[in-house]
Amino acid sequence: MNLDKQSLLAFARNERAQYEATLKEFVEIPTVSSEPERAGDIRKMAECAAGLLRSMGGEADILDTVEGGNPLIHGRFDIDPAAPTVTVYNHLDVQPASRETEPWKSDPFVFTKAGDRYLGRGTTDDKGPALAALWGIKAARAAGVRANLRVLWELEEEIGSPNFEAGIRKHTGLLKTDHVIVSDTIWVSRQRPACPAGLRGLQGFELVLETGQTDQHSGTAGGAARNPLAELMKLVSEMHDATTGRVKIKGFYDDVVPPTKQELQEFKDSGFSIKSFKKDHLFKSLRSDDPVDVMKRLWAMPTFEVHGVTGGYSGPGIKTVIPPRASVKISCRLVANQDPKKILRLVKQFVKEHNPDVKIEHEAAMYPFQAPTTGALPDAVRAAMKFAFGRDPVFVREGGSIGAVVSAEKVLRCPVLFLGLSLPEHGYHAPNENFDWQQASGGMVAFAKYFEIVSGIRPRSS
Amino acid sequence: MNLDKQSLLAFARNERAQYEATLKEFVEIPTVSSEPERAGDIRKMAECAAGLLRSMGGEADILDTVEGGNPLIHGRFDIDPAAPTVTVYNHLDVQPASRETEPWKSDPFVFTKAGDRYLGRGTTDDKGPALAALWGIKAARAAGVRANLRVLWELEEEIGSPNFEAGIRKHTGLLKTDHVIVSDTIWVSRQRPACPAGLRGLQGFELVLETGQTDQHSGTAGGAARNPLAELMKLVSEMHDATTGRVKIKGFYDDVVPPTKQELQEFKDSGFSIKSFKKDHLFKSLRSDDPVDVMKRLWAMPTFEVHGVTGGYSGPGIKTVIPPRASVKISCRLVANQDPKKILRLVKQFVKEHNPDVKIEHEAAMYPFQAPTTGALPDAVRAAMKFAFGRDPVFVREGGSIGAVVSAEKVLRCPVLFLGLSLPEHGYHAPNENFDWQQASGGMVAFAKYFEIVSGIRPRSS
Repeated sequence: MNLDKQSLLAFARNERAQYEATLKEFVEIPTVSSEPERAGDIRKMAECAAGLLRSMGGEADILDTVEGGNPLIHGRFDIDPAAPTVTVYNHLDVQPASRETEPWKSDPFVFTKAGDRYLGRGTTDDKGPALAALWGIKAARAAGVRANLRVLWELEEEIGSPNFEAGIRKHTGLLKTDHVIVSDTIWVSRQRPACPAGLRGLQGFELVLETGQTDQHSGTAGGAARNPLAELMKLVSEMHDATTGRVKIKGFYDDVVPPTKQELQEFKDSGFSIKSFKKDHLFKSLRSDDPVDVMKRLWAMPTFEVHGVTGGYSGPGIKTVIPPRASVKISCRLVANQDPKKILRLVKQFVKEHNPDVKIEHEAAMYPFQAPTTGALPDAVRAAMKFAFGRDPVFVREGGSIGAVVSAEKVLRCPVLFLGLSLPEHGYHAPNENFDWQQASGGMVAFAKYFEIVSGIRPRSS
Repeated sequence: MNLDKQSLLAFARNERAQYEATLKEFVEIPTVSSEPERAGDIRKMAECAAGLLRSMGGEADILDTVEGGNPLIHGRFDIDPAAPTVTVYNHLDVQPASRETEPWKSDPFVFTKAGDRYLGRGTTDDKGPALAALWGIKAARAAGVRANLRVLWELEEEIGSPNFEAGIRKHTGLLKTDHVIVSDTIWVSRQRPACPAGLRGLQGFELVLETGQTDQHSGTAGGAARNPLAELMKLVSEMHDATTGRVKIKGFYDDVVPPTKQELQEFKDSGFSIKSFKKDHLFKSLRSDDPVDVMKRLWAMPTFEVHGVTGGYSGPGIKTVIPPRASVKISCRLVANQDPKKILRLVKQFVKEHNPDVKIEHEAAMYPFQAPTTGALPDAVRAAMKFAFGRDPVFVREGGSIGAVVSAEKVLRCPVLFLGLSLPEHGYHAPNENFDWQQASGGMVAFAKYFEIVSGIRPRSS
């Protein structure tokens, strides 16, 4: 086959049934990496994925990371050691999902097709894009593209990739590649392809306060008893202003690099609209109604977010208990050049000064990332996206964090690019997560084209 | 039999097995009034209690309150319309209890006996005291006490007695009594009997904030999205200082009547100790270490208490969601002369000014109460307690709230007294709630003596 648009679209149409059957198979393995009881499903996913890669003519290995960590899947469609090597990164683990506590219209772990739309946990984050890229490899191989095309699939991305870096360090020889292209990001709007030029990092932590050992009655002890829930609420309110989002911890913003004029221009060109953002995310109101301010808040500014609370009574009505223990789950998204380690140090210092009885648990960190936006590889991404989707992509930033990206750049010592396929309305991490055939087939075309272009770029000297 | 101490103690010993078997039967009916699915158990309890009263030679009625409300149980051991009529109030509903979420050492709804100690939900609050008072009636009848002895048992006390007042209004003729004696309060320490001279009232409410419709990813929306959990934490922290407990709502303290010098003296004589209080309630630390300050905080000052939170992720680790909706369950204990209606109005005004998107739900109110401490009836309580337990009781205050008390005084137009049997270490509303034979048998003796004394007090003219 040829790599013209017509042939590639015909290829996608022919492959559609098989793509959908495979996506169904993947979605129906509930690979929730945050739930220890899913370990069997994680293993099943690894074996199923390796089997798929082999059935398509590739070599595949399930690579161990660390004791107790989930493995990586490495698939290789190599043709010539002298040809460039490209590795596509995706992850096959997913966020938790429950019909009991979330408004899913269908079972999250049953693949449901509604016209061109695919519903289920993992359809857009990140199993659908992973398979679209794989079918791009299939097309490129059918067209005789002279590159070694590989995939690296992770199974711990949704818990912050705790073992990814150690895992790829163990297998650097096997994983050697000229560059990595990540397909796990979201466009700003369906109208215009978008590539992240930066990812936010993350520092997660849980504030825990224990003031007693058992529930107490607010009548018999209230007034004298300390209330751990209320004290944590006070501490959290001292740490940030929930109305504006402004963090009040001294030094928190010191290392933030503000976006350049050109970056702000690309933000403005991205197709971002407050109205669509609110509609896609089902928000009633936002902290700001100014689009540039909102984009800066999403992509270029750090955050302080309360994710949940434990302690006390959360059933129907009111139970007048004073709980002995409470915790608040928090994370801060970080931007270049913030250092999670420094942020955690500032948080700990603040807590020590304001409520020394509060302990800090469940620390989780990811560094922020800045991607190249000029040069042969970013140009290849631009060309491939324009070829597949009809418009030049904008290089914006991504509000989320992909810890693996930072690790891949550091350990594999190669550029990391992005070619994302998800849309805001796909509901990343939300109930009724979905993906669609337009983005899947467009992704196949874009990846095939990308592989063709980069097959002509001389590998860096090693 | 005679009503001397020896005979009464012998009576108690003889009756012990039957008392314990009955308490077991009562405890093992899980009468959790806040859980709608327990309606069958509530009904079963009413029938079981009426059956018991009849088996002991009384008349018993299950009195309806309002449509959908739980019934009252009214038991009458009447002997002579001309004799004084005394009604003992207790409640037979209980707080929720769960081994899955609370550190119960035994099943809360299985009566467990360990020596002289009885374990299970409701043993001390309030099934154990209810039956001790009933056995006091049995002793008084055996001794020929000339009074009409009655019980009034409620099944909605733990949810704030929402239908008690309407219920007793319906049956005022049948419920006519010279006074009511309530046995649902806690001594300050085992060493010294205590009677409350006042109860705190309550104004409960839930603050609810909805800013979206589904969970959002803090990477893709964080910074621009409002965070309902964090906004409620800010609001709660604006409403009160969690460290000191001081309420910052304007006008909140305006109507508080401070304790008199004599009251403060009785507080000091009560046997209260910071060390025992911390030990009994398993507190690591308190808001104050000054005993008089702590007693004032418990009995004479209003509170602002956070009981629980809904919204977001409360499972293991951290899930980086922004929830669409959150709520905080709060109640304020109130003291004489605070009016719950006024407090709720102040809260609503404060919320409107500080975060007008926040809604207020689940309002629940109880008025504070002041009991007589001088006159024939309080003197009868003093004498009965000294007779049974060897020491004069102190008249302190009770930090808790019993809505039914205020209603009984208002509707039945008679004095309401207290003869409580529970101890701090019994764990009111807490896991491993317990009662003990010392207090149960002492209660039988005290009630029998009390009935004897008041049988000689001429009924008020009607």
